[in-house]
Amino acid sequence: VAYILQNNLLPALNGDAKTMNFLQEVVDIMLAYIVESFDRSTKVIDFHYPNELLQRNNWELSDEPETLDDILISCRATLKYAIKTAHPRYFNQLSTGLDMVGLAADWLTSTANTNMFTYEVAPVFVLLEYVTLKKMREIIGWQDGRGDGIFSPGGAISNMYAMLLARYKMFPEVKEKGMSSVPRLVAFTSEHSHFSIKKGAAALGIGTESVICIKADERGKMIPSDLERRIIEAKQKGYVPFFVSATAGTTVYGAFDPLMAIADICKKHDIWMANSMTWNPHKMMAVPLQCSALLVREEGLMQSCNQMQACYLFQQDKQYDLSYDTGDKALQCGRHVDIFKLWLMWRAKGTIGFEAQIDKCLELSEYLYNKIKDREGYEMVFDGKPQHTNVCFWYLPPGVRYLEDKVEKMKRLHKVAPVIKARMMEYGTTMVSYQPQGDKVNFFRMVISNPAATFEDIDFLIEEIERLGQDL
Amino acid sequence: VAYILQNNLLPALNGDAKTMNFLQEVVDIMLAYIVESFDRSTKVIDFHYPNELLQRNNWELSDEPETLDDILISCRATLKYAIKTAHPRYFNQLSTGLDMVGLAADWLTSTANTNMFTYEVAPVFVLLEYVTLKKMREIIGWQDGRGDGIFSPGGAISNMYAMLLARYKMFPEVKEKGMSSVPRLVAFTSEHSHFSIKKGAAALGIGTESVICIKADERGKMIPSDLERRIIEAKQKGYVPFFVSATAGTTVYGAFDPLMAIADICKKHDIWMANSMTWNPHKMMAVPLQCSALLVREEGLMQSCNQMQACYLFQQDKQYDLSYDTGDKALQCGRHVDIFKLWLMWRAKGTIGFEAQIDKCLELSEYLYNKIKDREGYEMVFDGKPQHTNVCFWYLPPGVRYLEDKVEKMKRLHKVAPVIKARMMEYGTTMVSYQPQGDKVNFFRMVISNPAATFEDIDFLIEEIERLGQDL
Repeated sequence: VAYILQNNLLPALNGDAKTMNFLQEVVDIMLAYIVESFDRSTKVIDFHYPNELLQRNNWELSDEPETLDDILISCRATLKYAIKTAHPRYFNQLSTGLDMVGLAADWLTSTANTNMFTYEVAPVFVLLEYVTLKKMREIIGWQDGRGDGIFSPGGAISNMYAMLLARYKMFPEVKEKGMSSVPRLVAFTSEHSHFSIKKGAAALGIGTESVICIKADERGKMIPSDLERRIIEAKQKGYVPFFVSATAGTTVYGAFDPLMAIADICKKHDIWMANSMTWNPHKMMAVPLQCSALLVREEGLMQSCNQMQACYLFQQDKQYDLSYDTGDKALQCGRHVDIFKLWLMWRAKGTIGFEAQIDKCLELSEYLYNKIKDREGYEMVFDGKPQHTNVCFWYLPPGVRYLEDKVEKMKRLHKVAPVIKARMMEYGTTMVSYQPQGDKVNFFRMVISNPAATFEDIDFLIEEIERLGQDL
Repeated sequence: VAYILQNNLLPALNGDAKTMNFLQEVVDIMLAYIVESFDRSTKVIDFHYPNELLQRNNWELSDEPETLDDILISCRATLKYAIKTAHPRYFNQLSTGLDMVGLAADWLTSTANTNMFTYEVAPVFVLLEYVTLKKMREIIGWQDGRGDGIFSPGGAISNMYAMLLARYKMFPEVKEKGMSSVPRLVAFTSEHSHFSIKKGAAALGIGTESVICIKADERGKMIPSDLERRIIEAKQKGYVPFFVSATAGTTVYGAFDPLMAIADICKKHDIWMANSMTWNPHKMMAVPLQCSALLVREEGLMQSCNQMQACYLFQQDKQYDLSYDTGDKALQCGRHVDIFKLWLMWRAKGTIGFEAQIDKCLELSEYLYNKIKDREGYEMVFDGKPQHTNVCFWYLPPGVRYLEDKVEKMKRLHKVAPVIKARMMEYGTTMVSYQPQGDKVNFFRMVISNPAATFEDIDFLIEEIERLGQDL
C-alpha cells in the first residue's frame, strides 16, 4: 500500500493537485502530439526495426515502481515511435484520421470505465446503443428501423456473429448439440472477400473447406451466375447452403458485389444474406478504433442464439425493463463501450456531415485516378473509375517500364512496391499499402478515409513514389 | 464539407485554438467528474428507468449537426447519468475503481488510434504486448517465460480461444474440415464456472450439451474425483474429452478450484488444462476495461490454428522481422490496443504495487467477513473465511429473521436482496450484486477491487443494507 500512497495516484482525492497535474501533463503531451500529427512537415513514422526499437528505450517491467516523471517520459517515447495515423499522408489503412469529437468521446468513455452488459452498469451507453442501432437499421431500409444488433470488437467478429446466427436460424439444435447434429453446411463468399469469413468458419467448427469462393469479375465483383451454379452444385452433393456473404467495398479493389442479384438468389434458395449486415463506422466514417456493428433483421434471434441466462449476471427480478440488459445477446461477457464515440460524432456532424466527409474522400480518389490513369510509368490494375476510395495501380520505374521479356518484367515489378514502401517508412514521409492479388504481382492499393487529406497530399504521394522508385 | 469546416474540427490545424479549446473543455469536464467520483458525498448513480432516461435528454441522431456547445452539453449529460464506477462505494462488479495512470494510458491509446495487427501500424504497442506477455508467462511459471499469447476483448473471448486451441491441438484437421471430421468432443468445467465456457462451446459448434458440469464442494471448488469419474464415463461412451476449464476465483463464491489435482488428472488423460491461462488484468489489477490476456504454453499453436495468410494484410516481403506481425494469430482482424494501460500501470506500480493493491482489497473482504459473521441478522452462504474478495451473505430483516415456516422464510428472503438493491440504486448510495445459486435463494455477493475503498466504506455498506432493509 505504501507504494500506491507514495505515488499518490489513488484515490484522486478532492483537490489532489498531484494527480490532477499528472493528468493535465499527459493531456498536454497528447495535445502537442495531435497538432504535430496534422502537420505535414512532421514524419508519418519514425521507423525502427523491432530489435532496434526494443533497445532505444527501457520497456521492461519490474518489481519496483517508476516515478511519475518516468511515466511521462514513457508516454512521450510511446508517441514518438507511434505511427501518426492522423497524418494527412498516412494512407496505409481504411481507418485513418483522428476526429476531434470522436477522440474526446473516446477519452470520456475511458473515464466512465464501464461495461455494456447491463442497463444497471451502463444506463446511458445502453440507451445510446439502442438509439444508434435503430438509426442504422432505418438507413439500411428495414421497416421502421426494426430488428436487432450489437456493437462488436471489429468487423471480423461481426461477420462471425452473422454466420453464427445464420446457422442457428436454420438449425437451432446446433446450440445444444453441436455441428454433429446438423448436415454438412456450406457458406459462399467472393474470392475477393475478407479473410474473416474463413476465420469465422474455422472457429465455428464449419471448416474452411466449407467456404466456397465465388468467382469475381475483373473489377472484383462477385459473379451471381457463378454463385447460383455453386449453390446448386452443393445441394446436389447433399450439402446445405446456409450463408452467403456479399461485400460492399472489398478490401483491395473496393468492389461492390451486386447485392440485389445476390439477394434474389439467396431468397430463391432460402439462404441467409440480406438478414444481417456488418457496418464498420471505424472505416469510412472515421470513428476511432474500434467501432463495428452487426445489424440483424430478425428481433430476438441474437438473444435466443447466444443467451445462457447466467443468474449471477442477468438477474430476472430487477426493478427496470430487462429488455435493456443486452449482454446475453453477446459472445462476450464484458463488452467495451464502443458506442459513445460514434454517437457523439453523429451529433456533431449530422448524417450530412458524414456524407460530406465520405464524398470528399471519394473525390480525392477520383483525382488520383484521373492523375495517374494516363501518366507515364503507371498502369491501373483494372479499368474504369474507382468503385470506392480504393485505387489499385502499378508504378513501373524506368528500368522496368521498357523491359520486353514479360516474365522478367513481372518478376522485377513484383519487387518494386515492397522496396518503395520500405523506403517510405525509412523516410517517414507517407505510407500506402501494397499486395499481390491472384496472378497479379504486387501493386499499390491506395485508400483514403482521412478527411484531413487534400489534393496536394495526393500530388505528394505520386511525387514520392516516383522519387523513391525511379532507380529500381 | 461545409459542415465539417463550419465546425472546424478537422484538421486540427497547427494552433487551431477552437479545436484545442474544445478538447481542453472536455478534459475539464472529465477532471471534475473524476474528483466527484472519488467523493463519498456524491451519488454512485443518479438512477432513472430506461424510458424516463430516454426522455430526460434529447439523445436522437439527426441529419443536421449540433454546435460544439451542444456537444459539451451531451458530454456533461452522459457523465451525469453514468454509473460512477470509481466511487469507493461501488461494489457491483469485480472491475471497479479508476486508476489514474491506467486512465491516462487509455486516453493516450485513443490518441494514437491504431490497430494491433501488424508491427507496421503499431510498432510500440506490438513490442509492449511482447514484453508484457513474456512477463506474465514468467509469473505463471512457464520455463523462461516461453510460450505465446494475445490480448483479447474480454475473458469470455479468451476462454473461447483456449477451447479453440485445445480442439485444434488434438484434431488439426478441424480447421479445414469442421466438426464433422472429428469424434464427439466433450469439455469439463465446474458447475460454478463462468457461463462463457458454455457460450464458447455453442459458438464453436461443440454444443452446450458437450460441456459437462463437474460438482463443486460447499465452498464452490471443483471436486477432482467427480471430474475423473465423468472423464472416464465420457470415454466409455466413446466421447473424446479434450478440454478442462478450471477456475481461480469463481464469479460468485470466489472459489479456487484445486488446480494441481485437476492438472494431474488432465495429464493422465491427456486433456488440455495447464496448457493455457486466461488472465484478466481489468479485474483485480484494476486496469481500465477491457484488458484480458490468453497465455498459451505452446509456441506457434495460435498462429497455425488461426492464420489465413491474407496477402493483403500480412505481406511476406516486408523489410522487418515478420514474427512481430501478430495479427494472424487472432480471430479479430483489427484488434484494439489494450496493452498500453496495463503496461503503463505496471511501470507506475511495479509488481509489488499490484500486490499491495490486491492485498488491500483482500484485507477489506476479511474485515467485512469478520464484521458480519456473528452479527445479528446475517448468515454466511458458506462457512469459513473468504477465499478471495468475494463475501457471500444473506441479510435477514427482522420481519424475516424469526419466521418459523422455513418455506415461507426462504420465499420472503429471496425477495429481500432485490428490494434492497433497487433501493440502493434509487438512493444512489452504494451498489452491490446479488443472485441465487443452485437451491440457495438470492444472496448478496460482495466483491472489492477498488483500492480507493476503506474500512469505513465497508461499515457504510452494512449500515446501508440495514437501513434499507429493516422494514422488509
